[in-house]
Amino acid sequence: MQIGTVIGNVWATKKEDDLQGLKFLIVQPELPNGSAIDSAYVAVDRIGAGVGDKVMVTRGSSSANFAKEHSLPIDALIIGIIDSIDIAVEQR
Amino acid sequence: MQIGTVIGNVWATKKEDDLQGLKFLIVQPELPNGSAIDSAYVAVDRIGAGVGDKVMVTRGSSSANFAKEHSLPIDALIIGIIDSIDIAVEQR
Amino acid sequence: MQIGTVIGNVWATKKEDDLQGLKFLIVQPELPNGSAIDSAYVAVDRIGAGVGDKVMVTRGSSSANFAKEHSLPIDALIIGIIDSIDIAVEQR
Amino acid sequence: MQIGTVIGNVWATKKEDDLQGLKFLIVQPELPNGSAIDSAYVAVDRIGAGVGDKVMVTRGSSSANFAKEHSLPIDALIIGIIDSIDIAVEQR
Amino acid sequence: MQIGTVIGNVWATKKEDDLQGLKFLIVQPELPNGSAIDSAYVAVDRIGAGVGDKVMVTRGSSSANFAKEHSLPIDALIIGIIDSIDIAVEQR
Repeated sequence: MQIGTVIGNVWATKKEDDLQGLKFLIVQPELPNGSAIDSAYVAVDRIGAGVGDKVMVTRGSSSANFAKEHSLPIDALIIGIIDSIDIAVEQR
Repeated sequence: MQIGTVIGNVWATKKEDDLQGLKFLIVQPELPNGSAIDSAYVAVDRIGAGVGDKVMVTRGSSSANFAKEHSLPIDALIIGIIDSIDIAVEQR
Repeated sequence: MQIGTVIGNVWATKKEDDLQGLKFLIVQPELPNGSAIDSAYVAVDRIGAGVGDKVMVTRGSSSANFAKEHSLPIDALIIGIIDSIDIAVEQR
Repeated sequence: MQIGTVIGNVWATKKEDDLQGLKFLIVQPELPNGSAIDSAYVAVDRIGAGVGDKVMVTRGSSSANFAKEHSLPIDALIIGIIDSIDIAVEQR
Repeated sequence: MQIGTVIGNVWATKKEDDLQGLKFLIVQPELPNGSAIDSAYVAVDRIGAGVGDKVMVTRGSSSANFAKEHSLPIDALIIGIIDSIDIAVEQR
């Protein structure tokens, strides 16, 4: 999972039918030390994350694994709001 | 999901049988602020997107999750036409 | 899906049993304007593509979605031979 | 699978329900010779790995393949604690 | 699929239960012309590949598609030992 910070929201009225009602947030991926890496992208949130929260994001097709009956066409899901990170070895 | 803008169309008469009738668009991926990133690619559209639209794209195998009976061999699907993006924290 | 051009063939007598009889081609990925990007790789072809053809390739696990009874261990499939590409907005 | 070293822990009280009880570790990916590459990320551990261990990590949706009844929304799993690596050809 | 050369072995006594008995090799990915690209990684081998062999590797979740009853948590599988590569167009 990737570490990141929620930096915004996306609204899209017209979308695939199965995705109505989902919340879409913009996440800036980061290293464990908080440095930004790569490009910001859109992730689905079902656990109440908001702007400024440090989160863990599952990317790729397993992000759709919460829908037990039918998988949805999404590729990023916020799976946790991070309380703390403990780096024991000097990060390279 | 990746943010991007539809910049063109692709036509392919000869293709895998399961893909007949699908619409293929070219998407230029972008940061939330509209800067182009990475390489343009082909995505399937089922929601009526057209050239110039800012869209959200699901990439990878979950892009095929709309076909309930049998998954198709595609790896990118336009899942929403973006109305607006709200960046609350300065984008890095 | 990625745009690319077929540039060669690969032969492998010894392979996973399920893959006997498949045709393996080498594809050079490209931007819509034909510039080469990234590294050439091997894709399965079932639609009669050949050297010099401009093709669309599905990458990742959904490339195995043509096998309805049992998915094969492949990660790239040529899904269409491109007739034409129309870029409406200046490509970035 | 990617080779890496466990460098820390992540705690997240608020998370997707299915993920309660899982252990999340931070892994720094490496080349076989131990040089760090790419960005550190979070992986699930079920085999007792700890800080300083050299591990093999499966990334992407197959990392969820341990859950036979229902796949979880995770994208990285520590699948082995490495005893030794033997490079026979000079590593490039 | 990616082309590469087997350059070594990895041993891990402690691993996910489902993976006992599998052989893990280190593969250096290459262009069709043999130039090394990207980072070496670990792949499962079931077809008898060994150090020095030029191979095709399936990466990502479809690498687990050989296990018909239950998918394993692996993300790279050697699917063929390459006999020859024929590049018809000058490789870019």
